[in-house]
Amino acid sequence: MKKFGLLLISLAVSFSIAISQQGGSLMPLPKEIKTGSQNLLIDKDFSIVVKGLPADFVYDRADDFLRRLAGRTGLFIQQGRIRPSMNNPANPSMEITVDETGELDLRVDESYSIHITQNLIKLHSKTSIGTLRGLETLIQWLNSDQEGYYFAEAQINDSPRFPWRGLLIDPARHWLPVDVIKRNIDGMAAVKMNVLHLHLTEDQGFRIESKVFPKLHELGGEGMYYTQEQMKDIIRYAADRGIRVVPEFDIPGHATSWLVGYPELATVPGKYSIEREWGVMNPVLDPSKESTYEFLDAFLTEMAGLFPDTYLHIGGDENNGKHWKQSKHIQKFMKEKGIKDNHELQAMFNKRLLEILTKNGKQMVGWDEIQHPDISKNVVIQSWRGQKGLAAAAKAGYSVMLSNGYYIDLIQPASFHYLNDPLPDDLGLTPEQARLVLGGEATMWGEQVTHETIDSRIWPRTAAIAERLWSKSDVRDVQSMYARMDVLSLQLEELGLTHEKNYNMMLRRLCRGKGVQELRTLADVVESVKRYGRNAQSDINALMPYTRFVDATRPDAPVARNFNLSVERLINGGDQNDLENINDLLNNWYANHQNLTKVLDDNPILHEIKPLANNLQAISFLGLQAVKYLQNNEHPPEKWRKYALKICKQAKLPYGETELMVVSGIEKLINSTK
Amino acid sequence: MKKFGLLLISLAVSFSIAISQQGGSLMPLPKEIKTGSQNLLIDKDFSIVVKGLPADFVYDRADDFLRRLAGRTGLFIQQGRIRPSMNNPANPSMEITVDETGELDLRVDESYSIHITQNLIKLHSKTSIGTLRGLETLIQWLNSDQEGYYFAEAQINDSPRFPWRGLLIDPARHWLPVDVIKRNIDGMAAVKMNVLHLHLTEDQGFRIESKVFPKLHELGGEGMYYTQEQMKDIIRYAADRGIRVVPEFDIPGHATSWLVGYPELATVPGKYSIEREWGVMNPVLDPSKESTYEFLDAFLTEMAGLFPDTYLHIGGDENNGKHWKQSKHIQKFMKEKGIKDNHELQAMFNKRLLEILTKNGKQMVGWDEIQHPDISKNVVIQSWRGQKGLAAAAKAGYSVMLSNGYYIDLIQPASFHYLNDPLPDDLGLTPEQARLVLGGEATMWGEQVTHETIDSRIWPRTAAIAERLWSKSDVRDVQSMYARMDVLSLQLEELGLTHEKNYNMMLRRLCRGKGVQELRTLADVVESVKRYGRNAQSDINALMPYTRFVDATRPDAPVARNFNLSVERLINGGDQNDLENINDLLNNWYANHQNLTKVLDDNPILHEIKPLANNLQAISFLGLQAVKYLQNNEHPPEKWRKYALKICKQAKLPYGETELMVVSGIEKLINSTK
Repeated sequence: MKKFGLLLISLAVSFSIAISQQGGSLMPLPKEIKTGSQNLLIDKDFSIVVKGLPADFVYDRADDFLRRLAGRTGLFIQQGRIRPSMNNPANPSMEITVDETGELDLRVDESYSIHITQNLIKLHSKTSIGTLRGLETLIQWLNSDQEGYYFAEAQINDSPRFPWRGLLIDPARHWLPVDVIKRNIDGMAAVKMNVLHLHLTEDQGFRIESKVFPKLHELGGEGMYYTQEQMKDIIRYAADRGIRVVPEFDIPGHATSWLVGYPELATVPGKYSIEREWGVMNPVLDPSKESTYEFLDAFLTEMAGLFPDTYLHIGGDENNGKHWKQSKHIQKFMKEKGIKDNHELQAMFNKRLLEILTKNGKQMVGWDEIQHPDISKNVVIQSWRGQKGLAAAAKAGYSVMLSNGYYIDLIQPASFHYLNDPLPDDLGLTPEQARLVLGGEATMWGEQVTHETIDSRIWPRTAAIAERLWSKSDVRDVQSMYARMDVLSLQLEELGLTHEKNYNMMLRRLCRGKGVQELRTLADVVESVKRYGRNAQSDINALMPYTRFVDATRPDAPVARNFNLSVERLINGGDQNDLENINDLLNNWYANHQNLTKVLDDNPILHEIKPLANNLQAISFLGLQAVKYLQNNEHPPEKWRKYALKICKQAKLPYGETELMVVSGIEKLINSTK
Repeated sequence: MKKFGLLLISLAVSFSIAISQQGGSLMPLPKEIKTGSQNLLIDKDFSIVVKGLPADFVYDRADDFLRRLAGRTGLFIQQGRIRPSMNNPANPSMEITVDETGELDLRVDESYSIHITQNLIKLHSKTSIGTLRGLETLIQWLNSDQEGYYFAEAQINDSPRFPWRGLLIDPARHWLPVDVIKRNIDGMAAVKMNVLHLHLTEDQGFRIESKVFPKLHELGGEGMYYTQEQMKDIIRYAADRGIRVVPEFDIPGHATSWLVGYPELATVPGKYSIEREWGVMNPVLDPSKESTYEFLDAFLTEMAGLFPDTYLHIGGDENNGKHWKQSKHIQKFMKEKGIKDNHELQAMFNKRLLEILTKNGKQMVGWDEIQHPDISKNVVIQSWRGQKGLAAAAKAGYSVMLSNGYYIDLIQPASFHYLNDPLPDDLGLTPEQARLVLGGEATMWGEQVTHETIDSRIWPRTAAIAERLWSKSDVRDVQSMYARMDVLSLQLEELGLTHEKNYNMMLRRLCRGKGVQELRTLADVVESVKRYGRNAQSDINALMPYTRFVDATRPDAPVARNFNLSVERLINGGDQNDLENINDLLNNWYANHQNLTKVLDDNPILHEIKPLANNLQAISFLGLQAVKYLQNNEHPPEKWRKYALKICKQAKLPYGETELMVVSGIEKLINSTK
């Protein structure tokens, strides 16, 4: 056997340099890599055998691997479909060995190892799930030079840090057809995530067919729901990629859509209709009536049969309690039962749910609010409130996972999410308590996204969260992360994800194909307002258009990131390249303005961002002046600096719910002239 | 009532000028338009009422119309979902009136009229199907100026020329998931097509679930087939957009996939496996055994129940007869029955099919080959052979429709398809015979397309065929068609079609994001080889990658079209603008070469097109020389001209199955220096 050991790559900063010479760019980074100096060259005779005790899906994914390899290389790979019954090639290029089939559950072994020499790739894993993780690493490891495509010699040993690496998708607030879910499952698989959390019910919609209570989806779903057949297809599709599907039925609050068909479930009697506004609403289930529990028993038992995963999420968040407070029969009920407040009332409600789930062999998951001394330690707490709450829950003996800091709907940069650790050193947990921290979930809440824009809010940023949850805790180099994320982002397109391609499409639509380049020059340095800024806009609701400029723009605007980085480097003693890059970008924005103005004038849908465009021109001009001062080693008059900073401050104002992301960089340029 | 009559627009050449001042760009062109001078301005209070006897889907499509309007204008339109139960707005902006619900069948009335004044839009139609056609016209009629969005005053009266305006999609050769079908249904609806012909079975795959004979899809579909639930969903989706679904089960040839699970159906006994090659294959059903008809009776009866349309297509094309000829028991059977040749044998087979279909209340459709004196006049002949065969069939009393000339898989320009008329004046048909010409179908055969590329082969060119089949026969202005098709093409993106956005995506993948602009400069003037050029390539089959440069390129390369047009104009006395445009393009191609070379070198998948890039540089240089001669009014030496033309001839050679589309323009430039 060939000897390794030429290079033992540490997984810190040097990695991204090393990979550019050796293999492909990996994300999430594996636990251990050793590289050698030989390459396994790929030609049309590349072939695969599968050995051991693989699940059926291993053949399908190995076949996918072969087709993706052909797709990326253009090689007419001759091996036919990889099937259990196939005739194995005599001299395969790649051997997949699976020790045992493996069961997809929380604690399944996902480890794998890859051994690449000049003539053979060996992918070995204990379970079929590990095989899937290894195949995704290997396709990322594909590299090329001017001679052709190859896999670089390597020994990779890998396993995840956390067993729960999830993505929440919310088809309830804005409907998302099956194909949107499937392509995102493919994206999750590519970065080794393993839990798809489907938020299936909300005030704004009920998205799963119930055969027991058909008015739930018929009236609550307005024709937009997953049939049970479709959901089985989604679950199978996810399972075949090593991904568990955890459904959420959010109760007792966030449940208006249930009440459209079944108003008898409500605390306050009346006629309910689908909610169109965003926010925390008053309607809430009635926890005082036995008929409520009979209904929930029948419904949750039906859903427990539909969703095979052990875990089932009952939501439990943001019940404002108003209807409970104003309802006489609830107040009477609480008095009779000695229930002192709404939190205790909800805990009672949850205990009843827990009985139903336990009877059905399910474990309960819920948001922070379900934690209560009366609630069994056998539930999993999903923390939207933060690491402190998470630590408290773990100390109290609950299994926990983190979502605070992973709210990708809030348009924060990938770096922010990346550095957010579910288990930082300073939590003060014992090793036993630390083991209760299962991982985390990126949450793609649905208020501000549609089928056209959701991919660009999920990808590529979620890859940073995936790496946080898979890779070792000391893998924290932000620049390496961004460099690898940029590579991955384009690779994700092969799965049908639209995060990149819908950007230009939406810009084209906004200007009807005339002036896309001008509009893009602006959009490249613009992002949506952050956090809950968009919810605040008047008139916005679930039926409004999500086709505006703000919807086309993307988080982590890459040109702005590049510009701000160049400024940072320049100020810290950067070189001529940085200065030229800065100068080019500023000139480009400045020169773009005249043509851009015509584009904005000609398309009324763009009128709202005219002040933004004007501001970019103004601060670009100031930036160019600052660059000139710096080049000439001159100090500008203090009056100029003050004026310039004032203009910059004004340029931070959002228009059309978008904001310029290069103001801080230009401010720094101006300040550095002092 | 406001008076019209300011302008009566003739529908010929002047139209495209008129619409640029008045309303939006319409395609297909309606029968009659009168425009006025007032506009109905659109704001967030725009609202719709529905009156009369609409089908349920009219509410859904009216609601879609409102959301599309909001999407294009960015207006937060306040009206809620349009539903049968809604509270009608008191002062609607738009009134939809439907006289009768209407049944979706071949002869349903699709006419509509639109009357737009400053305060009100009236859309009136006899049936709900007509309403759909009118809504598509109206959304195209949307226009804007710097003040805002509006509908221009107009009276539009419209109805189709032919009742059968179809698109054939072939998910059998390359599998196409449900979402691909649905978005193409939306595209069809946008251009008023009304028949989706699904070619569901082929040598390469069997794509519909059969509960009666499950090995058909299980073994013949390799996991890639529509479940009956999915097909019902597709049929409903199409019907709700006024589109009939006609399924094709291609027999007795093109049927290898049937034989994988049911080899007893084959003429020649043996073990059959899914065909991977393209072309006409030998396997064929056995027409001599009663058990074959028992099988087909049960299967077609099942399918007749699944597909509600009156028409059912049994294929019947390209049976090469080899297995029949080499089979002793077939020869014996023919002798016994006095069947003189294979065509007569197939006619006998078809007569048996016809009995089965008739029993199930279905009318048979088949390709040219099914025509035979023994076959009832009650079948519809789909002609892939041409207008002559079509005329002969109509003269023989058959209903017919044309597909010859509408083979959009062959990468011919839209203009070619556009001018191909199903009923040219010189066919010599009596008016009665002419009425038998039902229309035509664009055929998107599946050999060379995947889910990634199919939209770019269908759209926007199919809009030209849609106009041919909808609009009056004298609507034939090619430049007007292209101008309107370009507008429509971007509008189609709002339906999720990927013909535009997958272009850049595929180019990005080819160069891994580095050098997209350089690569695009080349791709913009390149098309795939035409007709059956790609089938000829060695090693190509159903499992090969369709991710190469040729797959990224598109029919009707618009930059090449623009260049060749400029040359044409210049030669016919064009002006300075044309010369400048030509010069800029040539310079751009020439200057692009150096950077492009690096992109091609760096990505082995692109090596195959290096000669193409070299050729573009070479002929661009010659073109620039020619321009200089023209500018200086000089005549080049004959030797130069001969040399230049020789280089051009070489530059016509395809590489990587792609060809440069600007060679003819440059040749013309060179020749015009004489």
